[in-house]
Amino acid sequence: MTVDVEGLVRGAKAGRQRSVGRLITLVENGSPALRPIMAALCRDGERTRTAQVVGLTGSPGVGKSTSTSMLVKAFRAQGRRVGVLAVDPSSPFTGGALLGDRVRMQDHATDPGVFIRSMASRGHLGGLSWTTPQALRVLDACGYDVVLVETVGVGQAEVEIASLADTTIVLLAPGMGDGIQAAKAGILEIADVFVVNKADRDGAQSTVRDLRNMLALGVGESGWRPPIVSTVASRGEGAQELLEALDKHFAWLSESGELRRRRLARVRDEIEAIAVAALRARFGDLHGNSRLDALAERVLGASLDPYSAADELVAAVTGPGTT
Amino acid sequence: MTVDVEGLVRGAKAGRQRSVGRLITLVENGSPALRPIMAALCRDGERTRTAQVVGLTGSPGVGKSTSTSMLVKAFRAQGRRVGVLAVDPSSPFTGGALLGDRVRMQDHATDPGVFIRSMASRGHLGGLSWTTPQALRVLDACGYDVVLVETVGVGQAEVEIASLADTTIVLLAPGMGDGIQAAKAGILEIADVFVVNKADRDGAQSTVRDLRNMLALGVGESGWRPPIVSTVASRGEGAQELLEALDKHFAWLSESGELRRRRLARVRDEIEAIAVAALRARFGDLHGNSRLDALAERVLGASLDPYSAADELVAAVTGPGTT
Repeated sequence: MTVDVEGLVRGAKAGRQRSVGRLITLVENGSPALRPIMAALCRDGERTRTAQVVGLTGSPGVGKSTSTSMLVKAFRAQGRRVGVLAVDPSSPFTGGALLGDRVRMQDHATDPGVFIRSMASRGHLGGLSWTTPQALRVLDACGYDVVLVETVGVGQAEVEIASLADTTIVLLAPGMGDGIQAAKAGILEIADVFVVNKADRDGAQSTVRDLRNMLALGVGESGWRPPIVSTVASRGEGAQELLEALDKHFAWLSESGELRRRRLARVRDEIEAIAVAALRARFGDLHGNSRLDALAERVLGASLDPYSAADELVAAVTGPGTT
Repeated sequence: MTVDVEGLVRGAKAGRQRSVGRLITLVENGSPALRPIMAALCRDGERTRTAQVVGLTGSPGVGKSTSTSMLVKAFRAQGRRVGVLAVDPSSPFTGGALLGDRVRMQDHATDPGVFIRSMASRGHLGGLSWTTPQALRVLDACGYDVVLVETVGVGQAEVEIASLADTTIVLLAPGMGDGIQAAKAGILEIADVFVVNKADRDGAQSTVRDLRNMLALGVGESGWRPPIVSTVASRGEGAQELLEALDKHFAWLSESGELRRRRLARVRDEIEAIAVAALRARFGDLHGNSRLDALAERVLGASLDPYSAADELVAAVTGPGTT
């Protein structure tokens, strides 16, 4: 199937949601058309990356979707165009979120200034690092002012979100596990802003207090001290405070030079991920030729160690001259 | 620092816990000594991989550590040597679990037939795929009959556990989120055995019922229907039923040929991960030469698209002759 790259890119830049959606689908599918698309998005040099990228993560049940919806409303009230990528890293097998766009879209279905998409992250080695930066790139080039990347924690995905976002929001809710669990999850290290959602529930105050105590123990090296915002997202309470916290962090990022540093690191990761995928594809070609299978059989039979097997694989994709 | 590879391997195979621990540390640190160690473990062809690998995963608070401890006791009562790898995928920054071995070891500290280790998974692109299979390989070669790999879900780590383990246990507890959340987390697809822990609490029966209903909706392609075992791990209740479920699954794996298929896939992943790491190390060398930095600057400035940048990177590590 041929893709009308120029037409799609033109449509997407003109704000046509269907064209944007189509581009994101091509990203999700790892289409070969991505290459000319990214080149076309880039060739049009009128606009380098400027979208503010906000990551939002937390355990199941803390109210991520509701909080995302609250934030979308708040950004729209400021007249900003908003893209939402809801990344479900947990289901590479089915390749899609169960609830998906239907539930999420309800509140914003008729608003042309909002683009919402649920994405699965494919493959257990790719993770967010592959598709999400490309989707961000598309939304940025298409003029979205803010992109919200929402994903379920705890785990690798959370850390990857932090490396993708300018500002990372970590959502907590009362009664979702004790302080040590939270600290174990590494959230102290990735959060730029904490939100304690469901702040009308029992235990909200003690969650805030525990969090404050933990934050007092260790100050980040960066010099930024993450604020704690209490919200009741289902009623829109705390939206204004949260926006202010985000703006404040973004201003700090810009002034401290951290913004440029983070974005440069993000691009490095993106280039690396594409390069690794290209090299893995070569393994796959070899795999088709059953070279990898044969190596695995020998390792399983204990006649070859895995490092020597990997050496053979690397030599096969790079050529003997460079090893 | 030089490592006495042969001595360490000999000691570890003789059952010396300190030697085993030392080998695992070398794995964690990605020591260059791994290469001769794996070769030495492999050269001694007396024993190919036979350890039964059981993965155990679930959200924070469901009782993973307690359940692991219960299982260790049960396996020991059968006279089997048990290795435990508690993988914390959430904290690549600090590089270690907070509670760590101290809490976990209490019950089994004096038992030479039990080896327990908390491991961090390093780096946000490496994940479990890098260190855990190597640690499994060490424990297997050192004669542990069962290796339990415990990790926190939800997320990539969970999926990676499933690809490492012969049998994957997914732990749930009453009141930890509704059915849709559970299904979203993809647990239906990775679980070989479900455990509803804290079965003495309110809502346990409805958790079992919800789970049963969901399982009725979709039967796995493999032909195995995951059983649901209720436990109160803190009191050791349900240990016997769980062991029986594990044995039954292992028997099914062996008879159906699935065991060999899973282990072969695991070794393929392991070889690939080592090969990718080797290639990434070459990127890193280039990075040191600031080639990647320069590429990232150009992409950030929109004068180069990320695919073309990745092409340059791949060409740089593989040599122009093979592209």
